Amino acid sequence: MGNSLGKLFTVTSFGESHGRCIGVVIDGCPAGLPLTEADIQIELDKRKPGTGVASTRRVEEDKVEILSGVFKRRTTGAPLCLLIWNKDTDSSAYERIKNLLRPGHADCTAAMKYGGFNDYRGGGQFSGRITAGFVMAGTVARMLLGIIGVEILAHTVEIGGIKTKSAGLPALRKADDNPLKCADPAATARMLKAIEQARLEGDSLGGIIEGMALNVPVGLGEPVFDTLEGDLAKALFAIPAVKGVEFGAGFSAAKMKGSENNDTFIIKKGKIQTIGNNAGGILGGISNGMPVVVRVAVKPTPSIGKTQNTVNIKTMESAELDIRGRHDACIVPRAVPVVTAMMAIVLCDFALRAQLIPEVLK
Amino acid sequence: MGNSLGKLFTVTSFGESHGRCIGVVIDGCPAGLPLTEADIQIELDKRKPGTGVASTRRVEEDKVEILSGVFKRRTTGAPLCLLIWNKDTDSSAYERIKNLLRPGHADCTAAMKYGGFNDYRGGGQFSGRITAGFVMAGTVARMLLGIIGVEILAHTVEIGGIKTKSAGLPALRKADDNPLKCADPAATARMLKAIEQARLEGDSLGGIIEGMALNVPVGLGEPVFDTLEGDLAKALFAIPAVKGVEFGAGFSAAKMKGSENNDTFIIKKGKIQTIGNNAGGILGGISNGMPVVVRVAVKPTPSIGKTQNTVNIKTMESAELDIRGRHDACIVPRAVPVVTAMMAIVLCDFALRAQLIPEVLK
Amino acid sequence: MGNSLGKLFTVTSFGESHGRCIGVVIDGCPAGLPLTEADIQIELDKRKPGTGVASTRRVEEDKVEILSGVFKRRTTGAPLCLLIWNKDTDSSAYERIKNLLRPGHADCTAAMKYGGFNDYRGGGQFSGRITAGFVMAGTVARMLLGIIGVEILAHTVEIGGIKTKSAGLPALRKADDNPLKCADPAATARMLKAIEQARLEGDSLGGIIEGMALNVPVGLGEPVFDTLEGDLAKALFAIPAVKGVEFGAGFSAAKMKGSENNDTFIIKKGKIQTIGNNAGGILGGISNGMPVVVRVAVKPTPSIGKTQNTVNIKTMESAELDIRGRHDACIVPRAVPVVTAMMAIVLCDFALRAQLIPEVLK
Amino acid sequence: MGNSLGKLFTVTSFGESHGRCIGVVIDGCPAGLPLTEADIQIELDKRKPGTGVASTRRVEEDKVEILSGVFKRRTTGAPLCLLIWNKDTDSSAYERIKNLLRPGHADCTAAMKYGGFNDYRGGGQFSGRITAGFVMAGTVARMLLGIIGVEILAHTVEIGGIKTKSAGLPALRKADDNPLKCADPAATARMLKAIEQARLEGDSLGGIIEGMALNVPVGLGEPVFDTLEGDLAKALFAIPAVKGVEFGAGFSAAKMKGSENNDTFIIKKGKIQTIGNNAGGILGGISNGMPVVVRVAVKPTPSIGKTQNTVNIKTMESAELDIRGRHDACIVPRAVPVVTAMMAIVLCDFALRAQLIPEVLK
Repeated sequence: MGNSLGKLFTVTSFGESHGRCIGVVIDGCPAGLPLTEADIQIELDKRKPGTGVASTRRVEEDKVEILSGVFKRRTTGAPLCLLIWNKDTDSSAYERIKNLLRPGHADCTAAMKYGGFNDYRGGGQFSGRITAGFVMAGTVARMLLGIIGVEILAHTVEIGGIKTKSAGLPALRKADDNPLKCADPAATARMLKAIEQARLEGDSLGGIIEGMALNVPVGLGEPVFDTLEGDLAKALFAIPAVKGVEFGAGFSAAKMKGSENNDTFIIKKGKIQTIGNNAGGILGGISNGMPVVVRVAVKPTPSIGKTQNTVNIKTMESAELDIRGRHDACIVPRAVPVVTAMMAIVLCDFALRAQLIPEVLK
Repeated sequence: MGNSLGKLFTVTSFGESHGRCIGVVIDGCPAGLPLTEADIQIELDKRKPGTGVASTRRVEEDKVEILSGVFKRRTTGAPLCLLIWNKDTDSSAYERIKNLLRPGHADCTAAMKYGGFNDYRGGGQFSGRITAGFVMAGTVARMLLGIIGVEILAHTVEIGGIKTKSAGLPALRKADDNPLKCADPAATARMLKAIEQARLEGDSLGGIIEGMALNVPVGLGEPVFDTLEGDLAKALFAIPAVKGVEFGAGFSAAKMKGSENNDTFIIKKGKIQTIGNNAGGILGGISNGMPVVVRVAVKPTPSIGKTQNTVNIKTMESAELDIRGRHDACIVPRAVPVVTAMMAIVLCDFALRAQLIPEVLK
Repeated sequence: MGNSLGKLFTVTSFGESHGRCIGVVIDGCPAGLPLTEADIQIELDKRKPGTGVASTRRVEEDKVEILSGVFKRRTTGAPLCLLIWNKDTDSSAYERIKNLLRPGHADCTAAMKYGGFNDYRGGGQFSGRITAGFVMAGTVARMLLGIIGVEILAHTVEIGGIKTKSAGLPALRKADDNPLKCADPAATARMLKAIEQARLEGDSLGGIIEGMALNVPVGLGEPVFDTLEGDLAKALFAIPAVKGVEFGAGFSAAKMKGSENNDTFIIKKGKIQTIGNNAGGILGGISNGMPVVVRVAVKPTPSIGKTQNTVNIKTMESAELDIRGRHDACIVPRAVPVVTAMMAIVLCDFALRAQLIPEVLK
Repeated sequence: MGNSLGKLFTVTSFGESHGRCIGVVIDGCPAGLPLTEADIQIELDKRKPGTGVASTRRVEEDKVEILSGVFKRRTTGAPLCLLIWNKDTDSSAYERIKNLLRPGHADCTAAMKYGGFNDYRGGGQFSGRITAGFVMAGTVARMLLGIIGVEILAHTVEIGGIKTKSAGLPALRKADDNPLKCADPAATARMLKAIEQARLEGDSLGGIIEGMALNVPVGLGEPVFDTLEGDLAKALFAIPAVKGVEFGAGFSAAKMKGSENNDTFIIKKGKIQTIGNNAGGILGGISNGMPVVVRVAVKPTPSIGKTQNTVNIKTMESAELDIRGRHDACIVPRAVPVVTAMMAIVLCDFALRAQLIPEVLK
């Protein structure tokens, strides 16, 4: 249980890293949305490993298939099943280390929770690969949000302690083309070096991703419990390796005074807006019309080349672990489209709850 | 909608700051738990305004009443309704400023979302007072978790930029007695001064609260979407003023290398444990048996004494706002028992989902 | 758990027959609905015991109180808590027989499910009295449905094997004034006699209630699982004593041929309608614009005056049971407004899901 | 939305009659259940069209594939995706009549609800074929229930007005082998004739199916809303063509007196049982340990050979409809394994809610 997300736009995830496929079912997609496999493929390709230093060497075609819910190139109102088949799944590396708990991974908790029946190959459903399904679902959500003008952007703002300079919208919109999904070319160069250095050391780096939703209508969020912050955070923590989420000024708000942190209301173009956006576009758990801004802390990939001390869960003795396999020295860039996807899923769900997207699109 | 939290231990919130009452219904509490109003009152009193500098001057008795679900001093398995009556509700201050949007508050978003029908007095359901209900529900959850040995602590670790030194368990357990719910007496003294200074300036301070759950069984959390981090974060963001949530090393993990951030597995007392706890007790979205550690950023109270520029939502013109009323210069200490409560609600829900708390207690 | 109903219009029930109160929380009621306690009281009074032969002798004032969610006589968008206090609760009769399982009642299953911790006085939450909460919630739902023109009627069509003749709409609309909520005066007379006879024998009668929703928009129901029939049936089975539910031709459809049972489509007043309504207004689990017609089988009240053989759950020996207390010889008429209420709750939920009722009413 | 069923054992349905596949995702299946495709195939084959008179002529291999959630022939705790591919999908017949509303079908409601974007070929997701997914999920549920000894049987008790004689358990257990899933050979012969006669007339027959669950533990069901009757009924109404559901004495209880309908409690083999089972094994919405007995009214298949008057939804004019295609003269026998499946899904969900099936099977 726990594999469904969303109340009206409901995404159910299934599949494993080294099983037959990765897929999602989307229940609640309005009827009439033009949708082809190509629409989804574009987004899916963004989270593919690149050829650069940051990427894993697993080569997957990852061609999405729409199994249901689309007829004559339009959604029908029935559930969508979207799926990619696993092909390049050499699991031999995992057989060798299957009893050695990889530090920082879900091996230990999964084995204990599921009585050892979990699919340990590549981490099973705990693999980052599961996020391919999130991206597929997120693409549909983004298309729905596009109807009401919402735009979602995400980009890398920190890797290995190297921070980017703040960038304007045009630069942010081009971040997708950057090898690190970063809007700051100078920082990118330094980040790439740091990643290469980490790789050479058999180590890995983490970072911070910023997500931003523009043109969000006022009124998304359903307090007191289904706040916009809360549901976004829940969705973002489903991305493996995320350990922190903050909105607007976030943790730095804790250091401000009220007079500094309060965003002053003004009238601009006949609308109520704020000067500054310490609130990250959310007041009282509800979108206020300003950009929704979230930052997500991604821990360094736990799979590293260095030999690590660990425990053999079978013998319950200490052991040395030497992971080979194919791994990212820095997962951050590949997580960027996943952040976008999770934001889209949550915002789409709230837009449906607020009746801002119709059940049938004309 | 959006006023229920939890899948098996389900808390539904109702009530407003200046309405008749604040209450919760708990559905899914196992039968047989000894429960009296006194059990809940103890916790509820912790979030009461103190007499110190940090507190509001609203004087509420806040006597909890159990309206249903308890018979012969034991829970029956039927829903619990817990409630406090509002008594000291002078709403005149709010009538005066009802069209002036208080910066940093939900006035604007609530008015726009609910078409102006929302109860604006004291912020209605957006008031911090709603968290009294969270604490009532959290107390029941904590009692249930107590059965399986889980202990939950929370304490202030930062106010106005002043950080505490790390403290041992004995000090943390005593933090409840500290006026700022802080385990570091030296820091407390400086924080109190800073709060007093802010109050004199008609300003307010934010801070950071750390929550900790000890003796958490392995296996709480239901990935891929209902992760322990995700559901905790969602619950914590329901606390008004929370703008960030991080687990274990959190945002600082983003700066570490994998070899630094990975917690090494070891065998200790026949159990698998880790050296260090950068994971905050959670791997793969599932508790790993180490303490669950979360930090929560609380923004400075938006209600400040200083005159602020804002907008009159009726005339759609700019206006000056001069809040009088009764307000906290620093809400952080009062939010500490609420952090505990939200952690308890989520952990209890997951413990029931993992069948670790029986449906009938003997 | 299991005490909430509805996805967007969510009703959570609490309270017990001989506890402090009976109440509901409604989450998801749109903002702006004019609502006073008097609106609800009218409906609530319909399920009150009458002075006639069919009724119990428990005398309850049952004055509804709105505890939250209404401000300036309009709903606010926040959860509504509606409640009646129990006053006339003499539980001594239940103490005497608390270990004697009343045949046909929930005593046995409740005691075993909840480990004996259940509130056995008056059946606790298994009492028919819990349906007062259903009626309160149903009234709000009916008011919302009224906005889109939906009208819901229910009436007694059979008691003790005595069937009514079919009646036209004007008669059905007056059934509320009939002591048995029956639209056929001749049948009513015979039913009253039968009920009086049963009472004299220390026995009870069951019957059948027909519910009808008129002017239902096309498109309510969310197959494949949340069908209109399915969700209506689920809600109706929550009424204690209901043992069967059928739509349109129902069980008699099983005896027809397809050519007889199929309702022919025609164009009438520019709309697609059907000749006949064997489908009960529902095709494919979705309303088709014809009247939604449901029939509900109500078993005879299990509490009877006759001495019954049973089991003492404490001694696990056979025993004789002699129920005194206050009981209905026929519960059917009092269940009629509850049928209306449950239909309203479900239809309102589906109307919100289909975005036919706005989130904010102007 | 509306395509998921169950709280802890959650079945999500997808697929269409003439799309690529029919599938389900099961979230919440405990880890460690031995499961192969062959286990599911056996049940799936039971709902296949036979070669007899009652059956359609569509020939589908319907080979189930397990796409996820099973590793080393055991369930892993991760979601199961089960699927059959559609192969024999000649949709030309549907193109011809796509604007002609088939009486008794979902064509009209689906077209209007989904704005004409629905997949009309073979009824899309409204096809009886969707129940293949229900059977796949039901098989897993039955295997889980088997662990705690629950046995589920279903059989035909009426077709075309021809009723069966009541049969003992041995006969009921063999009903699967009967061409009409009927335990009464004499009635079967007459039913077969009636079906053949209906087919010759270009007509169809309905009937009644009885489902029975044996050895059900006491305590399944979560009142007040999630009653065992209510959730079973909801699940059963998801089977296309079901128009009525009753438990135990059902509608005939409405004609009884309380003294007749009440099942007397007795002690038998040290357990509390009842003489008679008018309650159908359910009191207060909770299983009482007696067999759970439900009867389901199935309307005659709406697709008939006879020419029917109807409406052309495009031209909004009256029209004649002449369905050719491949259709069952009586769907009842094929619905029998679906009744079993729906009962299993609901009982399994409640058994998990009552913690009677562990999260990990050893």
